Amino acid sequence: MSLLVVGTVAFDGLETPFGVRESILGGSATYIGMSAGYFIDKVNLVSVVGGDFPASNIDLLKSKKVDTEGLQIIKEGKTFFWKGKYHVDMNSRDTLDTQLNVLESFDPIIPESYKDCKYLMLGNLVPAIQLRVLEQLTVRPKLVVMDTMNLWMNAAMGDLKKMLKMVDVLTINDEEARQLSEENNLVVAAEKIRTMGPSILIIKKGEHGALLFGKEGQVFFSPAMPLSEVVDPTGAGDTFAGGFMGYLAQTDDISFKNMKKALIYASTMASFCVEKFGPERLENLKKSDIEFRRDELINLVDID
Amino acid sequence: MSLLVVGTVAFDGLETPFGVRESILGGSATYIGMSAGYFIDKVNLVSVVGGDFPASNIDLLKSKKVDTEGLQIIKEGKTFFWKGKYHVDMNSRDTLDTQLNVLESFDPIIPESYKDCKYLMLGNLVPAIQLRVLEQLTVRPKLVVMDTMNLWMNAAMGDLKKMLKMVDVLTINDEEARQLSEENNLVVAAEKIRTMGPSILIIKKGEHGALLFGKEGQVFFSPAMPLSEVVDPTGAGDTFAGGFMGYLAQTDDISFKNMKKALIYASTMASFCVEKFGPERLENLKKSDIEFRRDELINLVDID
Repeated sequence: MSLLVVGTVAFDGLETPFGVRESILGGSATYIGMSAGYFIDKVNLVSVVGGDFPASNIDLLKSKKVDTEGLQIIKEGKTFFWKGKYHVDMNSRDTLDTQLNVLESFDPIIPESYKDCKYLMLGNLVPAIQLRVLEQLTVRPKLVVMDTMNLWMNAAMGDLKKMLKMVDVLTINDEEARQLSEENNLVVAAEKIRTMGPSILIIKKGEHGALLFGKEGQVFFSPAMPLSEVVDPTGAGDTFAGGFMGYLAQTDDISFKNMKKALIYASTMASFCVEKFGPERLENLKKSDIEFRRDELINLVDID
Repeated sequence: MSLLVVGTVAFDGLETPFGVRESILGGSATYIGMSAGYFIDKVNLVSVVGGDFPASNIDLLKSKKVDTEGLQIIKEGKTFFWKGKYHVDMNSRDTLDTQLNVLESFDPIIPESYKDCKYLMLGNLVPAIQLRVLEQLTVRPKLVVMDTMNLWMNAAMGDLKKMLKMVDVLTINDEEARQLSEENNLVVAAEKIRTMGPSILIIKKGEHGALLFGKEGQVFFSPAMPLSEVVDPTGAGDTFAGGFMGYLAQTDDISFKNMKKALIYASTMASFCVEKFGPERLENLKKSDIEFRRDELINLVDID
């Protein structure tokens, strides 16, 4: 089933205890798209890059089943750049540089052929831009999933609250859930956020797994895979979202029961992402790698 | 099967966002014993208190199937006192006061009838005292489980390393595992700690669940129950250990497969502990409460 992903395509500068990358492919839509491409034949992408974005990156995206018709290329502009440095424990990071560049004036234009998408994944972006995407669709998608971050809770809470009323699923991390709800307890936070709009909430806890909250106290937990080497956590949350959406679009079943399965695939994909720098590990996965890791994840919590 | 628990019995002063308690029953052996008492008919306890320890507390322990023959009462001494304050997020705490009192000169004397115990749980104590316990046993127990803390890694690493060689299972939290192994990655840390002695390692991650590491890469994860109200985390780790040991002693099966089941009961018991102050919630549990919560925990990660 058709999946539309809107988010950033970027250059990232990364420093982790395992090394340094000056400028490699990044961005929320990149990770979401490459991850979802393992589940469906075509992922429609809407984003923007500058004239400095090499054709080889576009070829890479295409090879991972990401359709780039909706990727605006602003020839005279520069691609969005983010630079971050991870601490030794890999659980926290400092932003060293942010250059919005072409993102500053980004107006998402949804190609005609994308406008009837059944599944919509809004990657982390200014809420007003996320809203502009919804306005252009000819039919309301079967499922709208949104990611956001603390920045917009500080800078654009009004727009964010408007958006929350329009989505089915919100994915945020634990700290963001606490900030958005003004509640310390995650279970209470989840209930409060669900009253703000999304009927389903996913709270990502990084290496500690993810919680899926649904109607009437429904709750499911996916562990994260214990890995002996985490090289770079960048993009793990987006890769997670890509696995979740990719599996739902593939199976075209948005029951809570199927979302549980999607959450396990989400964790599976995220566990690969962190094993190498940037989206490198997502370039050459095999179907059998994914199924094997998924089984490991299920066995991790299986008492029989 | 006979279970011997050695650890502290204490008075705790507690401050959490939910209230204050000036001086209530606490101590590692208290929590371990009361928790294990839900699984077997008699938990043998070795510890020490002062003349200020009320008979009502001893009656409480006895009512929870904790045998107090091995509880030394130093009439002229005062019971060990610890005071702590939890931060708003409940994940960290400050120690406000520590009065060792009778613990300072504690020499554990194992009653004759306890000396052939099949299961031994060494709660957090000075490693040298833990060693004194092992020396007095007439036969090597079927399973020796030890808890410890960062304090002894700083103050008594030599003794601690000696102890590690003598135990089957070590339970510590994630930060302690990192400190003991000098490794940031928990999977690598676990492998390293297993080479130091214990063939099984349990890493407790509080609200993030617990990992069980065994031979040849065996790994199992128990989630923690998402709770809408956490009143006081004191004793959760000890209550966890008590559930683990209680279930193993009840079933008398120390296979890795059975330890997985024990880990779920451990998480189940810990989830009750934090719902009220001190060991209060452990006073009046029903078997059916425990089974119901255990099923909830299993369902939390069940994709079917």
